[in-house]
Amino acid sequence: MAGLLITFEGPDGAGKTSALTELVPRLRQIARQPLIVTREPGGNPISEAIRRIILDPANTAMDKRTEALLYAAARRQHIIEKIRPALAADKIVLCDRFVDSSLAYQGAGREIGVTAVAQMNEFATESLTPDLTLYLDVPSELGLQRIAAHRQSQNDRLDQEALSFHQKVRGEYLTLAKQYPQRIKTVDATQPLEQVITACQALITATYGEWFD
Amino acid sequence: MAGLLITFEGPDGAGKTSALTELVPRLRQIARQPLIVTREPGGNPISEAIRRIILDPANTAMDKRTEALLYAAARRQHIIEKIRPALAADKIVLCDRFVDSSLAYQGAGREIGVTAVAQMNEFATESLTPDLTLYLDVPSELGLQRIAAHRQSQNDRLDQEALSFHQKVRGEYLTLAKQYPQRIKTVDATQPLEQVITACQALITATYGEWFD
Repeated sequence: MAGLLITFEGPDGAGKTSALTELVPRLRQIARQPLIVTREPGGNPISEAIRRIILDPANTAMDKRTEALLYAAARRQHIIEKIRPALAADKIVLCDRFVDSSLAYQGAGREIGVTAVAQMNEFATESLTPDLTLYLDVPSELGLQRIAAHRQSQNDRLDQEALSFHQKVRGEYLTLAKQYPQRIKTVDATQPLEQVITACQALITATYGEWFD
Repeated sequence: MAGLLITFEGPDGAGKTSALTELVPRLRQIARQPLIVTREPGGNPISEAIRRIILDPANTAMDKRTEALLYAAARRQHIIEKIRPALAADKIVLCDRFVDSSLAYQGAGREIGVTAVAQMNEFATESLTPDLTLYLDVPSELGLQRIAAHRQSQNDRLDQEALSFHQKVRGEYLTLAKQYPQRIKTVDATQPLEQVITACQALITATYGEWFD
């Protein structure tokens, strides 16, 4: 597989999306290959339809394993329609959340078990693993404060989860970062946004300098 | 787990559904516990919504692993909402298709690989295995002839598959029946319907006689 796959991970309120929005144009200026940014469900109709089922507030009866399977299904289709073709065309792909999110949210947060969720996701990814993962770390209390400050409405099911859920999510991210130190680099996301962005860019260009001017 | 789970399997055109329709009232007359009959998606809104995505003829871009994950997600929710509660209440549950269908159709028919599909389905079922599976065996040519004769419209994606697909499906069913002779009992479904029904009933009462008068 050619191309370069960089994923961005972190608990809610880590500021991933804000950081990515600023980071992308900066990286594009120095990238030697076309750079795309994406996130699940990735704009394809099948994954979008799956996502609607997951996020429908009416689906309160949804079992946590059903949810994990649906996330994996949406991920699979996103990989097939967007990520794999971009990598095959030697592009740089920045992806907002990937398998690590399922390990942290479904495996640890919802307590399905990280190993079970990882194995099931192997079916979806066929072992496609990011070349680099930037983990934006933020204490759960601060993350939740940020969410409360920025969101006006709380209309999907995830927003209804408690602090303990977010702490389990963060705990698993920290475990993964220790387990895969070559792949996962931690960024202190309590810093001001500009510093977070600078840190992300520095980690990317330090690790994959040959892809950038 | 209490209860008794009996699944019905077979390639398209085996006559499973016709056989079940006749078999259910006969078994109910002699059953010592309440008996329910179900099939995926099982009437729950989440599985129904998943099923609509799978069968939507517009979703021609659907990857075969996406499809397998969606079947597993619908199966999971069906287990949680219907099968498990019925078994926990000590009921007899007859189910039209279960995991073996995914092994035959997705694993072999679509060539994902039977082991991979089996492992992924373990995540969905948490090892819930039928107590008895009746496999209605029919040669692919006859199965396809029956489908063509009975269906007026061919409006879902599965109907567009070729003979070779159906032969791979049947081949895997035969392999599974050899592999799990205790659980899977084969019924010759080329016989007239009445004989198929009689054979099914005889196999059920011979194996689980204590559940019936």
